[in-house]
Amino acid sequence: MTTHLITIGDEILVGQTINTNAAWIGQQLALIGVKVNKTITISDTKEDILSSLIQSQKEADLVLLTGGLGPTKDDITKHVLCEYFNTELELNEDVLTDVKAFFEKFNKPFLEVNKLQAMLPKDCEVIRNYMGTASGMWFEKDNTYFVSMPGVPYEMKHLMDSSIINKIKEAFNTSDLFHYTVLTQGIGESYLAEKIVDWENDLRANDLGLAYLPSPGMVRLRISSYKGHKQQVLEKVKELYNLIPTYIYGEENDTLAGVVGDLLQQKEKTVSLAESCTGGYVSHLLTEIPGSSAYYQGSIVCYSYDIKEHELNVPNDILLEKGAVSEEVVLILSEEIRKKYKTDYSIAISGIAGPGGGTEDKPVGTVWIAVRSDKEVVAKKFTFGDNRKRNIKKSALTALNMLRLLILKD
Amino acid sequence: MTTHLITIGDEILVGQTINTNAAWIGQQLALIGVKVNKTITISDTKEDILSSLIQSQKEADLVLLTGGLGPTKDDITKHVLCEYFNTELELNEDVLTDVKAFFEKFNKPFLEVNKLQAMLPKDCEVIRNYMGTASGMWFEKDNTYFVSMPGVPYEMKHLMDSSIINKIKEAFNTSDLFHYTVLTQGIGESYLAEKIVDWENDLRANDLGLAYLPSPGMVRLRISSYKGHKQQVLEKVKELYNLIPTYIYGEENDTLAGVVGDLLQQKEKTVSLAESCTGGYVSHLLTEIPGSSAYYQGSIVCYSYDIKEHELNVPNDILLEKGAVSEEVVLILSEEIRKKYKTDYSIAISGIAGPGGGTEDKPVGTVWIAVRSDKEVVAKKFTFGDNRKRNIKKSALTALNMLRLLILKD
Repeated sequence: MTTHLITIGDEILVGQTINTNAAWIGQQLALIGVKVNKTITISDTKEDILSSLIQSQKEADLVLLTGGLGPTKDDITKHVLCEYFNTELELNEDVLTDVKAFFEKFNKPFLEVNKLQAMLPKDCEVIRNYMGTASGMWFEKDNTYFVSMPGVPYEMKHLMDSSIINKIKEAFNTSDLFHYTVLTQGIGESYLAEKIVDWENDLRANDLGLAYLPSPGMVRLRISSYKGHKQQVLEKVKELYNLIPTYIYGEENDTLAGVVGDLLQQKEKTVSLAESCTGGYVSHLLTEIPGSSAYYQGSIVCYSYDIKEHELNVPNDILLEKGAVSEEVVLILSEEIRKKYKTDYSIAISGIAGPGGGTEDKPVGTVWIAVRSDKEVVAKKFTFGDNRKRNIKKSALTALNMLRLLILKD
Repeated sequence: MTTHLITIGDEILVGQTINTNAAWIGQQLALIGVKVNKTITISDTKEDILSSLIQSQKEADLVLLTGGLGPTKDDITKHVLCEYFNTELELNEDVLTDVKAFFEKFNKPFLEVNKLQAMLPKDCEVIRNYMGTASGMWFEKDNTYFVSMPGVPYEMKHLMDSSIINKIKEAFNTSDLFHYTVLTQGIGESYLAEKIVDWENDLRANDLGLAYLPSPGMVRLRISSYKGHKQQVLEKVKELYNLIPTYIYGEENDTLAGVVGDLLQQKEKTVSLAESCTGGYVSHLLTEIPGSSAYYQGSIVCYSYDIKEHELNVPNDILLEKGAVSEEVVLILSEEIRKKYKTDYSIAISGIAGPGGGTEDKPVGTVWIAVRSDKEVVAKKFTFGDNRKRNIKKSALTALNMLRLLILKD
């Protein structure tokens, strides 16, 4: 089975929108054993859409399309689909009712332009959208299935989840693709490769695949079997835990903040943070997770010297002698925030994210992190790099992994 | 001129990596008038890479490739390029010196596997990479230029910025594409379309293009001329400012946090925040910007009732009678944080991000936001939606835009 994904929109080509839809669709299809073989992004012009449809029909059994179904004039996908499938638009009364109800629900006036959303191709199966006004469309031509979806991510996801995934499962036998991903923090790609070289050779000798997927502060290891050898893959995962135990924080779609949150919740413990260079980012990662109020109490983003000194009791002479980016300061910050916000654990982070603020002894990328419980404190210095956003991300993931290890030890 | 971008990697197809490279490359090429006509993502298999090279050579004048140049065994791009261009790998001594120096700089041991990074195709122009170990490669075949780059974003960006953009400019005459983007906050896509319907009709009558690009909490409007009518586009932008003045917060690649930061810096003012449901996200957006310590002092993420009451003096009876998500509470939080952290402005946000915590009167998505100066406070209630992450983003952008309007008024 060959699957293509066509994402339509100049905004993607010129880079004003990042193609998160393609990633999400790839993930969801992988879960049902369908591999996307090619993703193609094209302009919202009639010529480009038509030629991609023609090309993909030749190569693929399933063609998914996103984008170009909005109510505004730049959205032409529906018209091009009519041309390609040799059909025409007609008013779909059921969809019109849905669209009107949608506007009523949010107390918003129904505009004439929104009525166009109920005009749909005659010869397709309409997939109702209860999260927006653009319907999905399911077509078949010369043994290829085509599915057109809106480009707005949560509407597309709603259609996939509520209907399209099941329709694909019904229409095709799922393949034998099996992927499993192990998530590591605290070790770079080539060091990791060296540590697991024998394990990797054995894996490849057994016809399994391995991909290293680095991103700031972490490396994901994806182990694949294209022959459905699920047990063999899971055996290799087990071996990996013995080889690099402290670096592995999770599997598949886990996030480090989620893993830490689950641990805190299981143990009925709480956490607070004093964030300087990460500026609230670690708190954001923790609170992005539903239900985090069960264990996350609060943070102080102590960016200025003044707040470090007056709100978190770092003595002025320590700030002057040791500097805000120092072991002494993160030790005090972690202790003070834990007491002030009455939590079981705390994290304190102080560093030079850059691009300014570096010195000879403390270059940009120098970060001190402390994690603390009632019994123990661990403080470490890191030297990340010279990119501000990467330094913020690396500091955040490193701090969360330090906290994870501390909780596991307790 | 036709340009294709081929991004190589199963991790992109299965959605474990979001294709941010494609977006960034699209943006950079647009700046020099080069439009990416098609982006293709394929597996890291010899067959897929070869067939894409053959296909793109037929259609395109310029083919950019990213990915598959790492030191690990799953990286095969270099070998496939040798096959396609009918050449072979040889040791490049200059690159070997670079690679060794790179490891020395970070005090990391040089591994044998890293030496492979200096093996490069004979018949290409090597583009040196000073941020990593994978070199860029520039080829020409049958009047098409091919450029292969690493997939690690900051290495790819370094090669583009330091060399490839200039080489493309030299090799091609740039086209007449001109895009300009206006950024709006606080109005949905179809309401915006209704407000500017006459303006949009006139724009289209003048052969200009318009795209609505919505994302949570904002809509970007991209105005395009494919005939280089830059002045005409900028005239239309000016008209737009008269039509929807309060909604426009910036242009092109501005961010709302950056615009607010610039305003604070110009006026030498400072800001602090009391964030509840946004959990540190607004602080993160502000502190992601280099130099933000000039105006950003700090925040309290007051997630728990306890912190709202004891650290920010919200009376217990108000929390019980009015609830944490109320006008009274954000008025007090904004006043208390401004006094405590001694800043000119403050933001306070309290809401129900969901999925839990909603009630009949205060459904999930209810958010109160206050922005305050020494002279004035503005507090507003919003009803966003039922998706946690979107509610956090919408709250953050709405709060920043409210602060922007307050600063502009002062």
